[in-house]
Amino acid sequence: MQFDMEVLKYNEAGLIPAIVQEVTTREVLMLAWMNRQAVEKTLSTGEVWFYSRSRQKMWKKGETSGHVQKLKGLYYDCDADTLLVLAEQVGGAACHEGYSSCFHNKVNPDGTVTVEGEQQFNPAEVYGKQ
Amino acid sequence: MQFDMEVLKYNEAGLIPAIVQEVTTREVLMLAWMNRQAVEKTLSTGEVWFYSRSRQKMWKKGETSGHVQKLKGLYYDCDADTLLVLAEQVGGAACHEGYSSCFHNKVNPDGTVTVEGEQQFNPAEVYGKQ
Repeated sequence: MQFDMEVLKYNEAGLIPAIVQEVTTREVLMLAWMNRQAVEKTLSTGEVWFYSRSRQKMWKKGETSGHVQKLKGLYYDCDADTLLVLAEQVGGAACHEGYSSCFHNKVNPDGTVTVEGEQQFNPAEVYGKQ
Repeated sequence: MQFDMEVLKYNEAGLIPAIVQEVTTREVLMLAWMNRQAVEKTLSTGEVWFYSRSRQKMWKKGETSGHVQKLKGLYYDCDADTLLVLAEQVGGAACHEGYSSCFHNKVNPDGTVTVEGEQQFNPAEVYGKQ
């Protein structure tokens, strides 16, 4: 069966959530949103693009940090309203805070929160002091 | 640091997306939405609850099929607007279509779509013919 972009269901803002999973470690790195054009650009360039709801424009993951995500696999779910992207994370860290995964805040059974993982880079050095 | 439910950012409908990852296989199983009450109920019962946008009510994953998800870990991301749930998937299949993962539709580099994985159960037998 040929992939038809029309099969994907975008929300009222024209966006679809995309989960990014590291292809080798299988760590879930982040969730961000794509519009139709970001899906097309991800497929055509082999690097992962999203749509920023706050900036209201497309952005390439890693465009500032250089930590791009190389597309290794694309899946959509049974409802066709969520994407799963398998990617190679260049630089080893997806999170703008320097952690490999954005999901580094762990809620423990005792009700405490701890940070899991180590910072792979210093955000101030990568993005500049702001 | 104590976990404060108020740190989570819900969207305008009061919902937050929750990615479910199988704790052992590390397969990404599904994405669904939680409201505040579903987060609380997941934490207090140790089984995973969501909020259905179409039915406008809470539902426990597996309430019909028996394929519940046992909570094994809960994370939130750097923006506190997405949850990652590590779970043990009872019955081996999260998808209502009988597949282990809802993300069984693979977009191949040649532009075709193939179904990846095998059905673990027959949906008609589990949910009844509708």
